[in-house]
Amino acid sequence: MISLKDFGSFHVGGRRVKISGQPTQTMSFTPGTSYDADPNGTYLIEQAYVQYYIPEEQKYDPPVLLVHGGGMTGSNWETTPDGRPGWIQRFLEAGFATYVIDNVERGRSGWCALPDQWEGSAVIRSQEQAWILFRFGRPEDFEAGTPFPGMQFPIDAQDAFARQFVPRWTTTTDVMKVGVLAALERIGPCVVVCHSQGGELTLDTVARHPDLVRHAVALEPSGFPNIETAQRLADQHWLFVMGDNIEGHAFWMPLMAKTTASVDSLQNAGSDASLLDLPQSGFDGNSHMIMMDRNSDMVFGLVNQWLRERL
Amino acid sequence: MISLKDFGSFHVGGRRVKISGQPTQTMSFTPGTSYDADPNGTYLIEQAYVQYYIPEEQKYDPPVLLVHGGGMTGSNWETTPDGRPGWIQRFLEAGFATYVIDNVERGRSGWCALPDQWEGSAVIRSQEQAWILFRFGRPEDFEAGTPFPGMQFPIDAQDAFARQFVPRWTTTTDVMKVGVLAALERIGPCVVVCHSQGGELTLDTVARHPDLVRHAVALEPSGFPNIETAQRLADQHWLFVMGDNIEGHAFWMPLMAKTTASVDSLQNAGSDASLLDLPQSGFDGNSHMIMMDRNSDMVFGLVNQWLRERL
Repeated sequence: MISLKDFGSFHVGGRRVKISGQPTQTMSFTPGTSYDADPNGTYLIEQAYVQYYIPEEQKYDPPVLLVHGGGMTGSNWETTPDGRPGWIQRFLEAGFATYVIDNVERGRSGWCALPDQWEGSAVIRSQEQAWILFRFGRPEDFEAGTPFPGMQFPIDAQDAFARQFVPRWTTTTDVMKVGVLAALERIGPCVVVCHSQGGELTLDTVARHPDLVRHAVALEPSGFPNIETAQRLADQHWLFVMGDNIEGHAFWMPLMAKTTASVDSLQNAGSDASLLDLPQSGFDGNSHMIMMDRNSDMVFGLVNQWLRERL
Repeated sequence: MISLKDFGSFHVGGRRVKISGQPTQTMSFTPGTSYDADPNGTYLIEQAYVQYYIPEEQKYDPPVLLVHGGGMTGSNWETTPDGRPGWIQRFLEAGFATYVIDNVERGRSGWCALPDQWEGSAVIRSQEQAWILFRFGRPEDFEAGTPFPGMQFPIDAQDAFARQFVPRWTTTTDVMKVGVLAALERIGPCVVVCHSQGGELTLDTVARHPDLVRHAVALEPSGFPNIETAQRLADQHWLFVMGDNIEGHAFWMPLMAKTTASVDSLQNAGSDASLLDLPQSGFDGNSHMIMMDRNSDMVFGLVNQWLRERL
């Protein structure tokens, strides 16, 4: 049972676009009804959606902001694909006010359907790509559905997981970063928990805004703070969490190297920075989707413990 | 304060698509990292996302399913654009388990970015279009921001409202109907509350599935049940709710006529069907966005009363 003082949502950020000089369009969304629509006018684009849950008993002052990864939405943090409570429920139970972003272009933020605003076109991830990139198993074992030995991701729930995938652009990194910053500014000082591309979109902003974020948890981030533009790193606490089966993986080996380098740089700059390498710590089989893995509660416990010791 | 026994989300429905014969693409989502992605493979498309909240004290057996309108997502039912609790909060407080759909192609359902699956391209609504179609004021008064006299929509929050708009296709009515039915089948017997295009996508399904829906509340629907294909209408209860300033509106006059005709047909077929014409009932100034209007709690009270008398 979770008692909420409040819950709801808001959008932050974005910009206004005015379209002119286009011909009228006859719209028919419902058979038998149509109307002339003037596509010229005013549009708001590049906003980010934030859903929030405030527990009745808030045990910690800073709320948590959960930032999903690429091709995903905030639904990543809800019910796991195999139907267990997700990290949003766990953070609430632990006494944190919990904010979940759908970043710009994803989910309830909407995306820009106006011409000439965003470069390129949207792409979506296949189940085969996910199998490889998220380290569920060897590429050649996708068809048979045979995962890595001891795999923690609930392989039987792969379809439920793939239904969470949403299209993405490769050219919107900057507007997504602006979206995260707008959310941080609206929420105020908070703990950031980010995953994958969510790290790329968040960690550098964290390093430049120690007034907004003192604690950052990065689950297998694909981007890192820039030490050179950082401020007061000594005031900040960083936890990087990495899963299993990275050894020999063409995409993840370099990111693991960057992660350890980032931890070293942050420590040298005076930050409290740690790497939680799950297999090195005796926890085998975690995929890239750590918050959905069968041991998601256990890893949440480690993250929560790390936070408790620092809040 | 709201005590929840459970909350979370799931996706329903959709279909599997296999792509083959396409060349490899080099993907770079994060500066400095790239990988070769094979676009051939397996994709799940046309699923619908459902978020649910189960109150600790569930006073009524059937849950409520909230179905948003065109170019919108489930965020329509959350915090209103001017920051008040929305109908989702009110249904929970009233003791209903509450389910909120993001229909196919919208919000956390994702949309189909694969070529050759959906006809046409996505469109998005301008603030000017919304001003006219949602009956905030006369077209010529948009620039000045002067609404109809006594307007209940929080005009000062128009930007916050427009940030909820998401792109839509004009060709996906059928797959969205399938999405709603998949949600109903997963949730089981429930009360449906639908808005605008949500009516077009839902009401006909309701009439064909009296085992799944016995109570339907339609806020200014753009579509109606087909009496000829309906089943056991005598088992069903229908409430249609219409706002103000419809007289003389080129789009809404015909829909008002269809609404009254639908109520008559349902009554003749033995259903318990009523029209709540808000201005006729002494409540002036409601826009099309009834659940966001300043008197949203009052209208919710009328709807809740109607339901209580029938559950």
